[in-house]
Amino acid sequence: MIAVDAMGGDLAPKAAVDGAFAAARQGVSVALFGDENKILHLLNACSSDWKNYPVKVVPTTQVVGMADEPVAAVRSKKDSSLLQAVNSVRNGECSAVISAGNSGAVMAAAVFVLGRQVGVQRPAIAGLLPAINGPVLALDLGANADCKPAYLVQFARMGRDHALRFLGKSNPRIALLSNGEEDGKGNALGKEVFELLRQEKEINFVGNIEPHDLILNKADVVVADGFSGNVLLKSMEATATLVKAIYKKSVQTFLAQQMML
Amino acid sequence: MIAVDAMGGDLAPKAAVDGAFAAARQGVSVALFGDENKILHLLNACSSDWKNYPVKVVPTTQVVGMADEPVAAVRSKKDSSLLQAVNSVRNGECSAVISAGNSGAVMAAAVFVLGRQVGVQRPAIAGLLPAINGPVLALDLGANADCKPAYLVQFARMGRDHALRFLGKSNPRIALLSNGEEDGKGNALGKEVFELLRQEKEINFVGNIEPHDLILNKADVVVADGFSGNVLLKSMEATATLVKAIYKKSVQTFLAQQMML
Repeated sequence: MIAVDAMGGDLAPKAAVDGAFAAARQGVSVALFGDENKILHLLNACSSDWKNYPVKVVPTTQVVGMADEPVAAVRSKKDSSLLQAVNSVRNGECSAVISAGNSGAVMAAAVFVLGRQVGVQRPAIAGLLPAINGPVLALDLGANADCKPAYLVQFARMGRDHALRFLGKSNPRIALLSNGEEDGKGNALGKEVFELLRQEKEINFVGNIEPHDLILNKADVVVADGFSGNVLLKSMEATATLVKAIYKKSVQTFLAQQMML
Repeated sequence: MIAVDAMGGDLAPKAAVDGAFAAARQGVSVALFGDENKILHLLNACSSDWKNYPVKVVPTTQVVGMADEPVAAVRSKKDSSLLQAVNSVRNGECSAVISAGNSGAVMAAAVFVLGRQVGVQRPAIAGLLPAINGPVLALDLGANADCKPAYLVQFARMGRDHALRFLGKSNPRIALLSNGEEDGKGNALGKEVFELLRQEKEINFVGNIEPHDLILNKADVVVADGFSGNVLLKSMEATATLVKAIYKKSVQTFLAQQMML
């Protein structure tokens, strides 16, 4: 069963409930944590026979907002949808937790309640970035603005584990985000990480990578500090928005011209 | 007159000569530095009456290659098209120099031959990034992978000067690339730079900026260290390539479907 924080995110609870119910229709067991009345109302809007699907509602009374200070929110809002959803993983009732809410609070809740893997000093935000031949896992996308070299080695190990277990990669290629593909490229942090990753026997390190080769799937996992990883992620999002806007306009112009012929 | 390094860049000398001649057709005086025979051949291919346009050819015997070590190349290849083009600015014959060649060598030549503005410790690579309502100046896009806080303040001053003189902005808004728009965001470097920029009386500092607000033209100049600026630039280039490929495919599919109806 997957725990879903129904109250987290800019479009909550509707987007969370709709999404969870769409998964339930496909046979995924989901537990929705949050305002019971609102969730039931939304489930009824999804389908009058929603009770025939593997959906469960767990009532909670508090909400962690997008503007809440993460650690304070996690400490004070014990009956929030987020904390209760995370608790359900710790007590074994659920296998995983999903939240589109305050990402700092989600991470703080995960660290405080579930803890970290052995040997991992800092959690990272991982994401699948689009690329020509299918998505590429990248981390850290924003959890740690300042990183020590060892953190990035740990991100590489976590990325490798994820790619092995969830992305079907038998020997995932790990690359380091850099300002050039050559071995000597990178900032001071990157140069240290490069040497450490070369020494990691478990890691199939393929060297430095630039965004252009990321979208060509020259690696399965891309490791970065949380600041430049965040710039990578948000630049990709912003550019997609920009190019779509420009391209859509040009296609509309083209189609309008065709109609006038 | 504009000095053009005709031998610099992956598509040189053809792209450089074609581009320079296109400018000359519009009345811009250009001096093409490089292999005389090749340049004359290309100019004749552009137009049989190219001599009626403000184009001058300056023969040189050496070329700085893309793989050359920048400082060594600048020191040893005194009769290269790049060095001679830069020299023509120092001796007042030309007003500016353009090269699409080895960017490290271009910068080294500029620093050694032309020097830096007073108060500027490091040169920066600036570029115009696309945005919804016209381009945004960003620097450093890759010259300095590791920066001290003072460098970014100097980039802000240089960006301001450029925006005032060449982009027609009367009071350019300067922003700092960050992982969030709030005042407290940024890595350790960014937080120091933020405080310094706030204290600069000449700078109209509008705070931290994320790529999403860059494309919405919420600043005229965006300042970054050369590592994250490079990630910004190359992520935008890569994503534009990716989105165009995906969108083109979907438009082709759509048009094919229309034809089948």
